[in-house]
Amino acid sequence: MLNLYYAAHTCALATHIVLEEVGADYTTTRIDFASAQQRSPEYLKINPKGRVPALVTDRGILTETPAMLAYVAQSFPKQSLALMDDAFAFAEVQAFNSYLCSHLHVAHAHRMRGHRWVDPDDAHSIAAMQRKVPESVGGAFAYIESDLLKGPWVMGDRFTVCDAYLFTLAQWLEADGVDPKKIPRVIDHRRRMSERATVKKVIAVELA
Amino acid sequence: MLNLYYAAHTCALATHIVLEEVGADYTTTRIDFASAQQRSPEYLKINPKGRVPALVTDRGILTETPAMLAYVAQSFPKQSLALMDDAFAFAEVQAFNSYLCSHLHVAHAHRMRGHRWVDPDDAHSIAAMQRKVPESVGGAFAYIESDLLKGPWVMGDRFTVCDAYLFTLAQWLEADGVDPKKIPRVIDHRRRMSERATVKKVIAVELA
Repeated sequence: MLNLYYAAHTCALATHIVLEEVGADYTTTRIDFASAQQRSPEYLKINPKGRVPALVTDRGILTETPAMLAYVAQSFPKQSLALMDDAFAFAEVQAFNSYLCSHLHVAHAHRMRGHRWVDPDDAHSIAAMQRKVPESVGGAFAYIESDLLKGPWVMGDRFTVCDAYLFTLAQWLEADGVDPKKIPRVIDHRRRMSERATVKKVIAVELA
Repeated sequence: MLNLYYAAHTCALATHIVLEEVGADYTTTRIDFASAQQRSPEYLKINPKGRVPALVTDRGILTETPAMLAYVAQSFPKQSLALMDDAFAFAEVQAFNSYLCSHLHVAHAHRMRGHRWVDPDDAHSIAAMQRKVPESVGGAFAYIESDLLKGPWVMGDRFTVCDAYLFTLAQWLEADGVDPKKIPRVIDHRRRMSERATVKKVIAVELA
């Protein structure tokens, strides 16, 4: 049995969607960011990084979305949601996920989590980071729009874990100051994802 | 035939080491950062992101170190350098690599590449980011030291791609202001890595 620790409006949504897509037998535990539960002594035993998501398995606890997405896909090989039977195709899946994790999500994090990279009391620098977010996040989405999103799904005809991850990070683009009109293919992808039964179900759980 | 685009003193070293470890038939092409060759029209055709590494394969071009490391490991299954036969072990490998890519390397990048996240002309914020690097990079290494590095290798008894990646990022820690005395296990790992014939050979090529 798998258990996913998540918080609403976080990148945990990607793994949550993929667990539902593969039909996994799983439970979820909600972590309340408003009360800083992610930094509670109890949760730090689950994930010492004090972040979500974390996935409890029979073998131990996993963190880091790209790793979790590949793990769930590998554990349910019939659906082949990471195209792992083909080393090159899997590498393209992983390169996309790594770009989302280390470029797009990192750029986004400079809006709300600037204290990770400057003194939290340095209001000037915190504000300077926030001002750059529309450009840095927008640039990443523009690159996805023009180069990475093959269509209709991220990897082309096959639905993969990349689609769940892109949909998840695309939840935040308006709040990050990105103009949706400039990335119509990303927005169309987001709309099609939002219509999937699995996505509707998972979002209903997370926002309940 | 594989061809690796690299620059000295970059994270391309990780993939370079792993190509050597598996005995791949590969060539390399050096990109000169001093003359901004990574942003030349010729190189942008290889990697539109304008960064190294990039790995040219018969199927296409791959980027993003975690993806490339898993790709090389999967292409040479006998050596099993990513423990891919075991979904949980592979997920631990990937979680480690993702942490290095999206946390440690990102923290490090705030010393020299702060312009990605603030206006390049904002000297105050650029300097503020640089001042935080010893703490942010040091914190990541402290977590690796205490929690992630199982010993003697990152994943325990088995040498994996994680070792090449950790060694690569550990090249920069003194310049980032991290006190090596506080992370003796990381430093011992770096020393043992530096004594491997493969690592010596690859570094000789990159620094020639």
